Amino acid sequence: MIKPSIPKGTRDFTPEQMIKRNFIFETIKSVFRAYGFLPLETPAIENLSTLLGKYGEEGDRLIFKILNSGDYLNKVDGGLLDKRDSSKLTSQISEKGLRYDLTVPFARYVVQNRNDVTMPFRRYQVQPVWRADRPQKGRYREFYQCDADVIGTYSLLCENDLLLIIRDVFNKLQVAVQTKINNRKVLFGIAETAGITEQFMDMTIAIDKLEKIGMDGVVSELSGRGISESAIEKIREVFEKNNLPDLEKISFLKGFLDQSETGLEGVEELETLIGYRKGDDNLFDIDLTLARGLNYYTGTIFEVVATDVSIGSICGGGRYDDLTGVFGMPGISGVGISFGADRIYDVMAEKNLFPAEAFVSTQVLIVNFGGETELELLKIAEYLRKNGVRAEIYPEASKMKKQMAYANKLNIPFVLLVGEDELKRGKFSLKNMHSGEQSQLKLEEIITTVQNA
Amino acid sequence: MIKPSIPKGTRDFTPEQMIKRNFIFETIKSVFRAYGFLPLETPAIENLSTLLGKYGEEGDRLIFKILNSGDYLNKVDGGLLDKRDSSKLTSQISEKGLRYDLTVPFARYVVQNRNDVTMPFRRYQVQPVWRADRPQKGRYREFYQCDADVIGTYSLLCENDLLLIIRDVFNKLQVAVQTKINNRKVLFGIAETAGITEQFMDMTIAIDKLEKIGMDGVVSELSGRGISESAIEKIREVFEKNNLPDLEKISFLKGFLDQSETGLEGVEELETLIGYRKGDDNLFDIDLTLARGLNYYTGTIFEVVATDVSIGSICGGGRYDDLTGVFGMPGISGVGISFGADRIYDVMAEKNLFPAEAFVSTQVLIVNFGGETELELLKIAEYLRKNGVRAEIYPEASKMKKQMAYANKLNIPFVLLVGEDELKRGKFSLKNMHSGEQSQLKLEEIITTVQNA
Repeated sequence: MIKPSIPKGTRDFTPEQMIKRNFIFETIKSVFRAYGFLPLETPAIENLSTLLGKYGEEGDRLIFKILNSGDYLNKVDGGLLDKRDSSKLTSQISEKGLRYDLTVPFARYVVQNRNDVTMPFRRYQVQPVWRADRPQKGRYREFYQCDADVIGTYSLLCENDLLLIIRDVFNKLQVAVQTKINNRKVLFGIAETAGITEQFMDMTIAIDKLEKIGMDGVVSELSGRGISESAIEKIREVFEKNNLPDLEKISFLKGFLDQSETGLEGVEELETLIGYRKGDDNLFDIDLTLARGLNYYTGTIFEVVATDVSIGSICGGGRYDDLTGVFGMPGISGVGISFGADRIYDVMAEKNLFPAEAFVSTQVLIVNFGGETELELLKIAEYLRKNGVRAEIYPEASKMKKQMAYANKLNIPFVLLVGEDELKRGKFSLKNMHSGEQSQLKLEEIITTVQNA
Repeated sequence: MIKPSIPKGTRDFTPEQMIKRNFIFETIKSVFRAYGFLPLETPAIENLSTLLGKYGEEGDRLIFKILNSGDYLNKVDGGLLDKRDSSKLTSQISEKGLRYDLTVPFARYVVQNRNDVTMPFRRYQVQPVWRADRPQKGRYREFYQCDADVIGTYSLLCENDLLLIIRDVFNKLQVAVQTKINNRKVLFGIAETAGITEQFMDMTIAIDKLEKIGMDGVVSELSGRGISESAIEKIREVFEKNNLPDLEKISFLKGFLDQSETGLEGVEELETLIGYRKGDDNLFDIDLTLARGLNYYTGTIFEVVATDVSIGSICGGGRYDDLTGVFGMPGISGVGISFGADRIYDVMAEKNLFPAEAFVSTQVLIVNFGGETELELLKIAEYLRKNGVRAEIYPEASKMKKQMAYANKLNIPFVLLVGEDELKRGKFSLKNMHSGEQSQLKLEEIITTVQNA
């Protein structure tokens, strides 16, 4: 018998990991809700007609495809089988695939339910996605995304809400972060001013690599992509101002972009967000080198990095002008962010940021001495639970040592000993497993002690 | 452009449905935790070697299979393609499948992590599963299971815990239920007494249909399966006692099964559970006709039906002697239950059992009059959220009517009006959307009013 295993790039989550992960998910969801976002869930399985063509060629390859049920070869064209062409055969034997992200299913949902969705629609969605990527450290084939989007309005109050959500989430998780924003209209303005609007995408793709390859790398990438030296000089001129305080960046841009209507619009949007953040300068920094690769962003873009751990971006997003056009419903603008739960988990693990409560599940283990006392244990457990204490009775009258070891392994903070003497006196021995201290307490006192621990 | 859709048998969950579903899931999970159960999650994608052969032939067919990545035809034997044999080809082009239930992945997890799992292991797992079943009313291709199991002990305290969990969950959800239990050893004892131990499975399969086909149907099914008339008479003799009070059933069984060691063991287990439930006769009823089709159950079996809605079983489970033998690790007994969240949802919807709070997400909508007040709105929203009130600012200075309609559609209970006059006075108009009442309140008073609503 071979020891069973799970597919490469997938993971089991042990109870300890689950408790910590739930702490992250619950924190994020509670903040989403505090800002009026509503939960949505879409199926794991989508029609391939919904998914294909939305993530580029590589994306199409990385979508997990589900084999049709039954005699799926029945209707396949014989010539196709003879050719042994996997990619052509796929479309004939597979109609469904696994969700690749949460944005395309969201867009599909909005179009499908266009008559029932109330705009502006503030939705959050926390679900796993699947990608047939080569697994590597920190990259999985099944992982959760935690997205929040507001659609149906251009209001920058939504950008501000998302910035406040980022602040609140990382404050609650006690993760030190820097939130950087930029605006794709400003980037477009730079391209316009540098005379390379045709090569705007080339420019953003190159800039997006700044963190990885440095300024020299970006310069050689830009010139490799056929961008002239004078244009590169213009771009460099902007980047040199990136160390200025935000308001000075704004002044500089107003001058630099004065020939670009779009660019000035972007500057104005940044300025509005600076106005909203009054008194909270940590809310974000403007980073003129922030580009974000995804080409559907059209306005504000966000990126959050952990300042104490070098792990890359742990949250990001931006405004898009056309969420649903690809499904035949144009003109729906929105803005969204996505938290990277796996990386946040890694940061918190490295920095020991999970609060002690996040480890505790059962609060009291009731030791089982067997015999006549068992019925009394049931009553005591019932009393504890009715008073909000999570309690379990060890199911067998095993040796004391074994029962204590169980409490230790499971990090159960209190152990309750109920012998016949204790039952007569109505006072029970509660052992604090951290301090080792043992007290004789009435049931009411046990509730208080455990709840205040 | 074709309106996009989702695959048959799958569902989107709207915010309203999500809020209600989460109410059910959170209730179930909080009760699981109160009894010391720990969360576990396994990947949606499992190796087919883990899944196949575990659910019978039909199960194998109903597992969703994932097409291998890349040029999957490359290594396929040419002759196989010529034969156009779908079922043989599948094993060559698909190595992975979607989780079909939560039990097999749990067993796989336990074996894979045998050195790290602390026994007894109380785990709960709430995740979707997928079955390529023909979709029909109430049957979906993607649906959630909510399982709790204790493994590594034969103690009947675990059965008792599960019965208490069932009681607590349905009390909290205010769903009226009857919990029926039986014991597979008793059923085996009946077969032994009737002289048909060889046909035990036939007997249980027939009995399992009692609800659907009635006693006459069961009798003809039994004789159709070659069970003698005298044996059927014996079985009928037991069923006739099914209306007796539980303790009288026990007395009857002790006599009836006195030649069956296994049968008497089962009776003793039922008697122990009656002893545990002292003073809570509603905890369960013994139903001697309860069989449960799954043949891996070996001891206590459970089934819960809603008493006010006829919808079949909404929770079920039982004790099994060998969870992990199929993965090469024999001798792990356990007992588990599974809540059917979809059916529970349907019962609660039909009986209007969702509490009003379960519909409310945002508590206060702050109306946006635009202009200079916008910055003040931000401060007020911040104050409300800091005090635990979920609040959102309408993102645009739209017409009042539109903003009120938004609050109505989203069932937001309070709307806050902040005009320039109000700002000067430091008192704001809070409108209760249910009563229509409007009051002039200070911010502190708004918090209290909203939280006490």
